[in-house]
This record gives sequence, structure tokens and C-alpha cells, in this order.
Amino acid sequence: MAASEKFEQYDPRIAEMMIRANAAATGLPQYLGVQFLEFQPGYLRAEMPVRSDLITPMGTLHGGVMAALVDHVLGCVLYPLMKPGQWAATTEFKLNYLAAVRGGKLVAESRVLAMTKRTAVVQVEVRNDETLAAAAQGTLLIVDPPAKREKGEQ
Amino acid sequence: MAASEKFEQYDPRIAEMMIRANAAATGLPQYLGVQFLEFQPGYLRAEMPVRSDLITPMGTLHGGVMAALVDHVLGCVLYPLMKPGQWAATTEFKLNYLAAVRGGKLVAESRVLAMTKRTAVVQVEVRNDETLAAAAQGTLLIVDPPAKREKGEQ
Amino acid sequence: MAASEKFEQYDPRIAEMMIRANAAATGLPQYLGVQFLEFQPGYLRAEMPVRSDLITPMGTLHGGVMAALVDHVLGCVLYPLMKPGQWAATTEFKLNYLAAVRGGKLVAESRVLAMTKRTAVVQVEVRNDETLAAAAQGTLLIVDPPAKREKGEQ
Amino acid sequence: MAASEKFEQYDPRIAEMMIRANAAATGLPQYLGVQFLEFQPGYLRAEMPVRSDLITPMGTLHGGVMAALVDHVLGCVLYPLMKPGQWAATTEFKLNYLAAVRGGKLVAESRVLAMTKRTAVVQVEVRNDETLAAAAQGTLLIVDPPAKREKGEQ
Repeated sequence: MAASEKFEQYDPRIAEMMIRANAAATGLPQYLGVQFLEFQPGYLRAEMPVRSDLITPMGTLHGGVMAALVDHVLGCVLYPLMKPGQWAATTEFKLNYLAAVRGGKLVAESRVLAMTKRTAVVQVEVRNDETLAAAAQGTLLIVDPPAKREKGEQ
Repeated sequence: MAASEKFEQYDPRIAEMMIRANAAATGLPQYLGVQFLEFQPGYLRAEMPVRSDLITPMGTLHGGVMAALVDHVLGCVLYPLMKPGQWAATTEFKLNYLAAVRGGKLVAESRVLAMTKRTAVVQVEVRNDETLAAAAQGTLLIVDPPAKREKGEQ
Repeated sequence: MAASEKFEQYDPRIAEMMIRANAAATGLPQYLGVQFLEFQPGYLRAEMPVRSDLITPMGTLHGGVMAALVDHVLGCVLYPLMKPGQWAATTEFKLNYLAAVRGGKLVAESRVLAMTKRTAVVQVEVRNDETLAAAAQGTLLIVDPPAKREKGEQ
Repeated sequence: MAASEKFEQYDPRIAEMMIRANAAATGLPQYLGVQFLEFQPGYLRAEMPVRSDLITPMGTLHGGVMAALVDHVLGCVLYPLMKPGQWAATTEFKLNYLAAVRGGKLVAESRVLAMTKRTAVVQVEVRNDETLAAAAQGTLLIVDPPAKREKGEQ
């Protein structure tokens, strides 16, 4: 409740739709096998299995997998908070790798720290089983759908 | 020449081997289609095509692809500069997205800013055709092969 | 209790000593007027007044003040967790400014996310009255006192 | 020339005015002793002495000094590129410390990587004598003067 009061709007139907669409993911999220598990206002929990083909010859998860997962959940936490048709584009983020990942699954939690009509700052924590494996912080730009953008300035 | 003097060692055979192994990539680098094009001491240039299945429904490249590419070249620039058997683990990086990417290819240039026996700081610029599309900066840990690690402390 | 179990050691006397030494600060911390208020294992809370001479002609706090405060508390949270004589050197950090600051005071909270014998990753949140004004994340190197360093390699 | 073509406008009179105003600095820049040395389109070089009172008991420059210097030059490089009355607010930056600083002076170079009407991404390198001591990258928001802001949305 406190969390939802922080945000101008929260549409649980968008959250439900994103969870129902897990099986229909395409592109990078499909390749990684990311599944959305839970949305709350300003919060998203997602997970992905650490497949053996994502492990490097050194025996640990390719860092790019973690980076891609972080980018994905950084933006997706915002969809239920935005107006229909708007989308979230990452403008920057920073990621610290905290523990080597060798198997199991990754659980990513994405939390909105601050949000205006145009931008949001989001933090992500990724756990590998019980270990904190990565922490990230980034900025998203909230982009209007094309029709609206033509009238305003980008 | 000036560049090679900055580094204690540079083994062009490792660079050649990494380029020859482009076709044998597995896992995330294979999925992305990253190809190493050129190594110099403290420098790596790599490219990948922007395949249509990496484009989001909003018409632009998934940010996670860029993040994964950046992580990959951040570490790979170090291999010809390290001792045989050592590997480079990203400990952190920061990425700014500078332009939306809609097609064509990405060319990533990775440059070593500073390097000690244990760590390196590396910058990456990614161009999409002629446009600077991303700039990143990160830290790598240089990890000894397992045999050596047993004797020392990690 | 849970927090203290995360860390190998916590010396409350060092924490007390740092709080008692508030009035004896020199250099940049003295200029900024930073005061340590509370230590717990892996946690530090500090504050500083937003003096009018730290405000730019645009009417808001100079961003460098926030950056300096963040760097200061990033490292200082570690002292009660380290061995006597060790010190914490920031190797990198990232800072998001979340709200303009025009007066009042800044309260910075610094929390250790992960710590090994040699490094720590720390997050900082800075509030201006009740508003979250900045969030940061960085890496510290734990450096042995000179005598020890002579024997080992840096 | 190539550089100036990248930017919509460059007003050398603003650059000159900022250099002439070095002696009139107040607040944090005055405390640090930062002096602007040279502007070019998208480029600023500044320096500051490493005064002994900025050195910590461990014998090295307080990291907050470096962070404050970086924040200062990140934004100031933009003034000759902006419209009169606009100002640059740092929204985020990331800083890697590359070498301990014990004396001498710091020379900071700030370069604009990308700029739109509303934002800019800037890189900073700081040298201590000939050693690269820090590298940073950050985002600035270009803010209209108050009169204009009242009409538009913030």
C-alpha cells in the first residue's frame, strides 16, 4: 500500500498480462529463459535457470547473461506503472558482480527507487540460490507511443 | 608501440587464436554472433549483426544484447595481456546507451585504461554503423588458473 | 544480529571512536561538516548540513558535495569491520542524483552488500529531509597497513 | 573543427568568461581550487593543486575530492554548448579510481560523447602528473532557465 502510494498509477492487469505472456517470450528473454514471477507496484521478481550452455569454459556463468538479465528486469518493472503504449528504454546502468555463478537458478528483484513522468531510477538484486550474485542500478527513459511523440519534442 | 610498452606482456598468438576460434564460439557469444576482428596490445575490435530476432516489439535492439556484448569485449581484450591459463572476470561495469539501434551491425571497441597484475579497468565504445550507440567502463579481476589458486589466497 | 553474522568481525570500539572523533575531522569531511551518527555491523548513518555556500548560483546543492559525501561514507562503514590498521580505498562508485537539494540537511546511509578479505561492495542512500536525493553503489579495496604490505605484493 | 560540427552551437565567449571567472569561484570549486584552463567545443581541461589538507591520514588524496572534481567538470564542459540561461545538472555518473594520488596537481579533461537538446553524456579523465588517476562517465540534464520552465513541464 505504501509502495503503491508512491506511484501515480499501477495497473495490475498489465502485470498479469506480462506474467501470462512468459511462455510467449521471443528474442533475448526467450534465449535466457527469463520468467516473470511477481509484480507489485514498483517491484518485479523474475527468474531464469542457469543452463549449462551459458557457462563459460572457466566454469562460471558468462557475465553477459547477468548483464542482459539485469537490463531486462530494470525496464520491465515499469510497465504496470506507465500509461498504455509507453515503453521504458534503459539509458544507463551499473552492475556489480558479487559472486561467481556455477548453476542453479537466478532470481532477480527489480525495485523502483524514484520515478517521474519521464524517467525512473531502478535497483536490481540477483540471487543465485541464497547468495547475492549481482547488484545493479540504472536509469530508464519513459517513451511515449509514436503518435504522441510526433506532436511533442523528443 | 607506445601502447604495447604500457603492458608487461602481449602475446599475439593468443590474439590470433581467439580470432581463428570465432566460428567455434558457444553459448552467449554464439547466440549473439560476436566475431573478434582485431587485437592490438590493450585493444580489441569485435562486431555482431543486429539480427531481427534481437529487436524488441518497440522496434529497437534489446538493451540486454548491448549489455552482453559490452561484458564480453570488456574481458576478452585482456587475454593476450595475461599469463597462459589466467582468465578475466568482470567485477563491475557501467554502460550508457547513446542511440537507439534498429538494424545494421554493432562494432565494439574495447580499450584497456589501466592494468595491474590483479585488475584492469577497460572502456568500451559500440558503434552502430557510424553512430556511437553505447559507451561503457568496467573493472576486471585477473584470476589465476586453479592450480596456482590453491597455493595462494583468493 | 543477522547482520553481524554476515561479517567476520565487528569492533564497536572503532565505531565509537569514529563517532567521538566527529569534532576532530579535518580536510574534506571537515569542510563538508559530515558527522557520523550511528554504526551497526555493515551499516553507517551520517549527516551534514546543506550550508548556503555549498549551493550553486542555480539554487541547488553542488553535485560534487553529494559525490564527496557518498565517497566518504562508502569507505567509512568498513572501518569497524576491518582489522586494526587496515584502510578502505574506493576503487569505483556510481551515483544517481534523484532530487534537487536546496537546503536542510543530508542524511546518508551506507550499507555493506558483500565483503571479502580484500574487497567490499557498498550501497549508499542519501535523504534530504524525507526525500531520497541520491543512491550510489561502489567497490572498496581493503588495504593492509604498510608493514604488512612490504612483505606481500600490492 | 570536426568537434564543433558535432554540436549545434558553441559560444567561445562563454568559455572565455568561465576562464576569466576562475578567481571568483565560490563554494566547493573555490575550496578545491579548481581552475579552468581551456575550452574547445565539447572539451574542457581544468586543474587543481593537491593541497596537503586534502590528503587523508593514510597519505593519499581523499576520494571525495576526486569525485567532486569529476562532478564539477562533467557539467561545466557543457556551458559553451548550451543556450544562455540553461544549466547542466548531473543526473548520474560513475568513477573508477586508477591510481593513488599523494601530491602534485590534478588535471581533468572532460569530453562530450553525445548531446541532445535535453541530455549529454560526458567522459572525464583525471591525470596526476603523468599518471591516469581516474576515469569517469556520466549523464547531464540540460535545464531551461526558470521562465521557460514555468511554461513547459519539468
